[in-house]
Amino acid sequence: MSQLNQLTDKLRAALPAEAVVTDPDVTRTYAVDTAAFCEAGAPAVLVFPRTTEDVQNIMRTATELRVPVVPQGARTGLSGAANAVDGCILLSMVKMDAIEEIDPVNRIAVVQPGVVNAVLSRAVEEHGLYYPPDPSSWEMCTIGGNIGTGSGGLCCVKYGVTAEYVLGLDVVLADGRLLHTGRRTAKGVAGYDLTRLIVGSEGSLGVVVRAVLALRPKPAPQLALAAEFPDNATAGRAVCEIMARGFAPSLMELMDRTSIRAVNSFASMGLPESTAALLMVAFDTPEPAAELAAAAEVCREAGATEVVPAEDQAESELLLQGRRLTLTALDAMGTTMIDDVAVPRSRLAELLDGVAEIADRYALTIGVCAHAGDGNTHPTVVFDGSDAEERARAQASFDDIMALGLKLGGTITGEHGVGLLKKEWLAREIGPVGVELQRAIKSVFDPLGLLNPGKLF
Amino acid sequence: MSQLNQLTDKLRAALPAEAVVTDPDVTRTYAVDTAAFCEAGAPAVLVFPRTTEDVQNIMRTATELRVPVVPQGARTGLSGAANAVDGCILLSMVKMDAIEEIDPVNRIAVVQPGVVNAVLSRAVEEHGLYYPPDPSSWEMCTIGGNIGTGSGGLCCVKYGVTAEYVLGLDVVLADGRLLHTGRRTAKGVAGYDLTRLIVGSEGSLGVVVRAVLALRPKPAPQLALAAEFPDNATAGRAVCEIMARGFAPSLMELMDRTSIRAVNSFASMGLPESTAALLMVAFDTPEPAAELAAAAEVCREAGATEVVPAEDQAESELLLQGRRLTLTALDAMGTTMIDDVAVPRSRLAELLDGVAEIADRYALTIGVCAHAGDGNTHPTVVFDGSDAEERARAQASFDDIMALGLKLGGTITGEHGVGLLKKEWLAREIGPVGVELQRAIKSVFDPLGLLNPGKLF
Repeated sequence: MSQLNQLTDKLRAALPAEAVVTDPDVTRTYAVDTAAFCEAGAPAVLVFPRTTEDVQNIMRTATELRVPVVPQGARTGLSGAANAVDGCILLSMVKMDAIEEIDPVNRIAVVQPGVVNAVLSRAVEEHGLYYPPDPSSWEMCTIGGNIGTGSGGLCCVKYGVTAEYVLGLDVVLADGRLLHTGRRTAKGVAGYDLTRLIVGSEGSLGVVVRAVLALRPKPAPQLALAAEFPDNATAGRAVCEIMARGFAPSLMELMDRTSIRAVNSFASMGLPESTAALLMVAFDTPEPAAELAAAAEVCREAGATEVVPAEDQAESELLLQGRRLTLTALDAMGTTMIDDVAVPRSRLAELLDGVAEIADRYALTIGVCAHAGDGNTHPTVVFDGSDAEERARAQASFDDIMALGLKLGGTITGEHGVGLLKKEWLAREIGPVGVELQRAIKSVFDPLGLLNPGKLF
Repeated sequence: MSQLNQLTDKLRAALPAEAVVTDPDVTRTYAVDTAAFCEAGAPAVLVFPRTTEDVQNIMRTATELRVPVVPQGARTGLSGAANAVDGCILLSMVKMDAIEEIDPVNRIAVVQPGVVNAVLSRAVEEHGLYYPPDPSSWEMCTIGGNIGTGSGGLCCVKYGVTAEYVLGLDVVLADGRLLHTGRRTAKGVAGYDLTRLIVGSEGSLGVVVRAVLALRPKPAPQLALAAEFPDNATAGRAVCEIMARGFAPSLMELMDRTSIRAVNSFASMGLPESTAALLMVAFDTPEPAAELAAAAEVCREAGATEVVPAEDQAESELLLQGRRLTLTALDAMGTTMIDDVAVPRSRLAELLDGVAEIADRYALTIGVCAHAGDGNTHPTVVFDGSDAEERARAQASFDDIMALGLKLGGTITGEHGVGLLKKEWLAREIGPVGVELQRAIKSVFDPLGLLNPGKLF
């Protein structure tokens, strides 16, 4: 019996019939996530577990037959971390999508990994609660994927990233054993923090089958302003001043001229095209008008040519809609490669100027939108994917942006992860001692190297 | 040449003369932290490094000669984690106490580990910033010790624990190599989160020599209320209702009758002795009076017999002074053993009732103060330490309290750590798979087992 037949037979014996898919037309569509230019192998089989025991059976089979396993959420990731490797089991967690518990007193939710971020966010809202992490893909992406990637979003400047909301995990290890990490309590320091080790590990240490998440009280709806700046330096100054003066904005986003023009041409939003940088700042306090007026004044002092505070929720939403459309609008212009460099916010203007120089040098269009309050930028290279020479220039510019980010004291990835896209760069950021320890930790959890091999390192 | 002579010669060759102390009268005083009933060995030598290179030299010598090393801060810890083991190098980090940087724009501080928590807190306050973690020992304890333990404090119900404020670390490994973890940026997901693995690891994975800490804007001064309850059930109900209704108190503390009486007899505070549970709730928003009035109403609805909101800062501080004196007052009554069990806040009343039953069963005095909003309690057993039988009962009651905490879905330690005091209990909480992985991670960082051996596991 061939290895493949043996694998599918064992999986079919352990799982419900509909949970095991071998039709190559189907498995092929599940072989990639949303990253550009990351290779994907041909999976042997695609499985949809519905229970922890299903996942344990899959991992026991994988270990017995030495078959690699690639865990997946909704495949909205931007680093290739969920791409198939040849002959692997594609482990899709999307059918384990139950919200098991929402507890307003202890402010926690207990969920399976396949629950969609927006589904959870709306469910907790009904209890007056708030699950902050809000990646752009929140209508599609899963909590398990968010945990694997360490996702962020627009909320982070005030509310932080996914990692800060994960209290405890159930994790199936490579050999099928079940690990419980963390706690259901607000505090806890019993032993090493394995929960945080799993968050952001991109499925390389174990398969998350349950998560205890921290929730917050639902804040008031946010109210935003938009400020136009003549250059990156003045916009960067406004960002720094707002943070240095102790404001706590619930959102602080930036669009550069390229992004503004892309959005206008895509959706006729009427954003101000003469502006070099459009800054949006919002507050979600019960009475945001006073803070909004004060932040507007800071923007003017920093050099804003025009500041428009929203007068109501609807106006505020309209202001933010342009920001939300940026990546879609850039995508419509050609093939895109989206970067995720974060720098200390005091270096934001230098990064933006540097990216503009890189775009000039390579004669490429690079639009930048940024979670400005966090110094987390998404320079997006737009190019003709069918032109090999232009594609090479795009990749070179992408590398230059990461090098610039590191030079400015930043990181190669603020919230998208390493995956395949940036694995050559990880070692440059964390250094040889860090890489050696990380590899050794990987071996502790997964001595046979079966979980998402070839990613991260 | 004896091993001891060889060790001290090598350390003296590598370090300034005053950095190496062998006088047993001195080393003996450094051999213990503040935990009760934890054994301490006789150290070979006490060292006070002043630079990262000093620490690297010490660790290289320790590795070469296979000598165990016990890193220490101010030895205010309550778990025995800083206690000497026989023949060890006691590595006191208190002289590496520089604040290297305070950066209001990026809201970070860069510090050496020996800086005292209160010194840092006051220094950042001058820049309009706030470093929240505030363990009771904050006037003495060091940031390095806080990182080793994963310390909490009164602030946690709103601002979280030490771990949430550590962005990046420089760590000297057992073999003397230097590891950089984390980042200076607001966000970052490059590789496994080694920063969080080090936080709370009690000096068993490496020696922290520098930390990048996140800061927040300084909040308004807090205003508190005190509410008297006839029993634990009604006090617990008030805690649950306040949190379930979405309040964000900056402090929510509880004292039981034993604690109240201890404080009155210690300091004539005039706290209400007929009360079974005294709850203190504070807010640090710009206009706290409205929230305070609303929280007072919730307390009354839950069954409070008396609610006294402070009218100004001075009155508020007086209310909280009693809470701050609790442990000192209990200490004055005899030998004490302080526990640190945390449960989901919905189980707080059950834990308090259970502790009262345990005190009755063992005929012991057990006073409880609690970070009620976090469900984190500090039952403190008071007994005659010179009476072997009473001491045995005290230890048995201590174990019963931890068993109760686990039964209620809690943890054996919310913020004090495991150390020597609770190492038998760690395995019961995290289970055999967790222990096996944690031991293996320890071996990755410290294959010779030289760093703080015998602690945690």
